[in-house]
Amino acid sequence: MSGETPILYSYWRSSCSWRVRLVMNLKGISYDVKPISLTKTGGEQHSKEYREINPIEQIPALVIDGVTLIESLSIMEYLEETRTKVPLLPTDPAGRAKVREICSVIASGIQPLQNLAVVNYLEEEKRADWIKHFITRGFTAVEKLLESTSGKYCIGDNITFADCCLIPQVYNARRFHVSLESFRIITRIDEELQSHPAFIKAHPNSQSDCPQADNTNLA
Amino acid sequence: MSGETPILYSYWRSSCSWRVRLVMNLKGISYDVKPISLTKTGGEQHSKEYREINPIEQIPALVIDGVTLIESLSIMEYLEETRTKVPLLPTDPAGRAKVREICSVIASGIQPLQNLAVVNYLEEEKRADWIKHFITRGFTAVEKLLESTSGKYCIGDNITFADCCLIPQVYNARRFHVSLESFRIITRIDEELQSHPAFIKAHPNSQSDCPQADNTNLA
Repeated sequence: MSGETPILYSYWRSSCSWRVRLVMNLKGISYDVKPISLTKTGGEQHSKEYREINPIEQIPALVIDGVTLIESLSIMEYLEETRTKVPLLPTDPAGRAKVREICSVIASGIQPLQNLAVVNYLEEEKRADWIKHFITRGFTAVEKLLESTSGKYCIGDNITFADCCLIPQVYNARRFHVSLESFRIITRIDEELQSHPAFIKAHPNSQSDCPQADNTNLA
Repeated sequence: MSGETPILYSYWRSSCSWRVRLVMNLKGISYDVKPISLTKTGGEQHSKEYREINPIEQIPALVIDGVTLIESLSIMEYLEETRTKVPLLPTDPAGRAKVREICSVIASGIQPLQNLAVVNYLEEEKRADWIKHFITRGFTAVEKLLESTSGKYCIGDNITFADCCLIPQVYNARRFHVSLESFRIITRIDEELQSHPAFIKAHPNSQSDCPQADNTNLA
């Protein structure tokens, strides 16, 4: 392993960058952030310089141990396998499956459908309804799973990958004015984790590339 | 572990069911298939009986070792952790990350956007264009990743989870008339695996619930 400080290519409001920031913070891994603006100059993720980091022009990317990793869930699994001191998956395979189920419902069933690159492909007047429909559909599934898995957090009383996927998605739901009233377990866990140091540090409002205006508008 | 034969709730043409069938076949795990029709009577996945298996009303679901697992990638990781004889992930963390990156691009970046439950939410005349756009966008990313990872298969010369995600997605691309001409590595790997016994057995046309008509229309 290289002794260099890992570099995370991140955007303040990207929920996939946020998942990785959470895992890094929870595991106590030091890292430098290089902000990649998804809005400036048509998106810095498409720049020639960044394409050399990630040929598929997406964030996050993590340079660590001499390798460049992309795709948030894959990065999280790598960190779990190489930084074992603070585990974010249970030890038993069935428990690990329960965590990954919730990650998958969010990472495949919700986030891709409300991702702006996708939503922008719809006519403007359809976008708000589309986003609300798919976040509500996905959270209905997550809430049902949490009925049988949750304790203090998504899976029992230990913080896991599932919480790292859930919290950014709750922020996005609020950002798009999705009613969360019927999602009692989701909102309880979200509230529980708002004051956790690793979650405060990973929040969009704590990022150096967060515009000033948004610092006053805490989720 | 329970000695009972695992039961896979599956639909012949579901790419997520297909991924799990591939992993079960490659690892030599015996299992019974219970077909769940996504089209009959408004979708059997919404039946009261199936909701008791999977409360979020999706396939696949796998009953194994006395637990019920859902979400294809999570099921695949469970099988990798509990059935180690035929590994479908490399042993080194960076190699495992490369496999999971490709799985993630397909499972989060392509499949959810061309899933019929999602596409049916669009106006009918927009659907074909939408599907082609997002499969082409996703395959452009996968092809770029394969340029640096592929050997005989997606990651070097061993079959991995990445191949189990790729092959069903290629079938879907063909089903929706997406041009694959520029995806040379993807189509080469697809061709390579068409004659592999585990892939033949997992193919939609080999499933007991495949309608007769489709048996004559091999992908």
